[in-house]
Amino acid sequence: MKIIHFGATGTLGKYVCEELGSRHEIVRVGRKSGDLNADLTSIVEIRSIYERVGSFDAVICTAGGGYFGPFDAMRDREFRQGVESKMMGQINLVLEGHQRIKHGGSFTLTTGILSEDPVPMASNLSAINGAVNAFVRAASIELPRGIRINAVSPGLVEDSMESLGSYFPGHMPVKMERMVSGYVKSVEGKITGQVIRLY
Amino acid sequence: MKIIHFGATGTLGKYVCEELGSRHEIVRVGRKSGDLNADLTSIVEIRSIYERVGSFDAVICTAGGGYFGPFDAMRDREFRQGVESKMMGQINLVLEGHQRIKHGGSFTLTTGILSEDPVPMASNLSAINGAVNAFVRAASIELPRGIRINAVSPGLVEDSMESLGSYFPGHMPVKMERMVSGYVKSVEGKITGQVIRLY
Repeated sequence: MKIIHFGATGTLGKYVCEELGSRHEIVRVGRKSGDLNADLTSIVEIRSIYERVGSFDAVICTAGGGYFGPFDAMRDREFRQGVESKMMGQINLVLEGHQRIKHGGSFTLTTGILSEDPVPMASNLSAINGAVNAFVRAASIELPRGIRINAVSPGLVEDSMESLGSYFPGHMPVKMERMVSGYVKSVEGKITGQVIRLY
Repeated sequence: MKIIHFGATGTLGKYVCEELGSRHEIVRVGRKSGDLNADLTSIVEIRSIYERVGSFDAVICTAGGGYFGPFDAMRDREFRQGVESKMMGQINLVLEGHQRIKHGGSFTLTTGILSEDPVPMASNLSAINGAVNAFVRAASIELPRGIRINAVSPGLVEDSMESLGSYFPGHMPVKMERMVSGYVKSVEGKITGQVIRLY
């Protein structure tokens, strides 16, 4: 398969890319690193990636962020960080890509545990994850030509324990190989409309 | 209680308003009708309502819409209809209102069955409902001073059967009095962080 991977050089992305790269051709897309560069918040740059790559079988996204900080300091402007990046960025990958992807191709987006198991400071990311999870369920019954779509919803990944662990009291860290398995299941398997919970 | 009700003159809103209005003081807000006028997509207009009302105990929102139409014709611009209205409109009611609402006050937002039980043409509304449901769960652990927040998630309401029933094959219409009960439970009860599913 030829796979376009947005966020291929990130903390989680590089492991996913390494595993799938052993069997497939990966076009690694990052904001500043990788084979091609694009910012998820730019529809023009997303389109440009699809045009340059041409024909492809799968899209993976492990990119996109949001606002993480005090609730009191969060207004519309801060909330838009997640709306523009992790939410509309990922949704636009699908809206711009589904007419270009091959028959039977797949989209694999990334959400996270916060949609159902929140922690303080993260309401923006919770909402955005909830939006993408619900979008995936709905889009799966709309996409034509056997095109599939899933979301991988990671818990706290073990590589982030040192930097983020104190914000996630009682959350069990998840091994990176389990995280990677979710992307393999979505891309190489046949399921669609699923939120693959890894926690 | 003094309740600000955005969408008080809508299909569902008028029943909710009638029931709660028998026991509470309701400030009815609509885009063009009601006691005060505001468009949910305008933060300036939301702020203006809060400033004019002054002190209040509860906020209810039964307003806000999204894009309902062919998936193929949906791009970023169409998707933003729901993002600006039913999603950010409702979330901004909370972000702008939580420092003004009385101790122990409550926010009751409206989502819908589409977040977990999708139908064709409605991926935008599915995503937006999912965002607001997850936001409510997360915000409930962030809000100070005993402030509560819930979402009422209606199924297909019986009053909409004639106009919308054909888009929802196999969905059982829900009686309006059951819908109304969800808002009563959120406003007069003590639960918080809940998605009150009415289907």
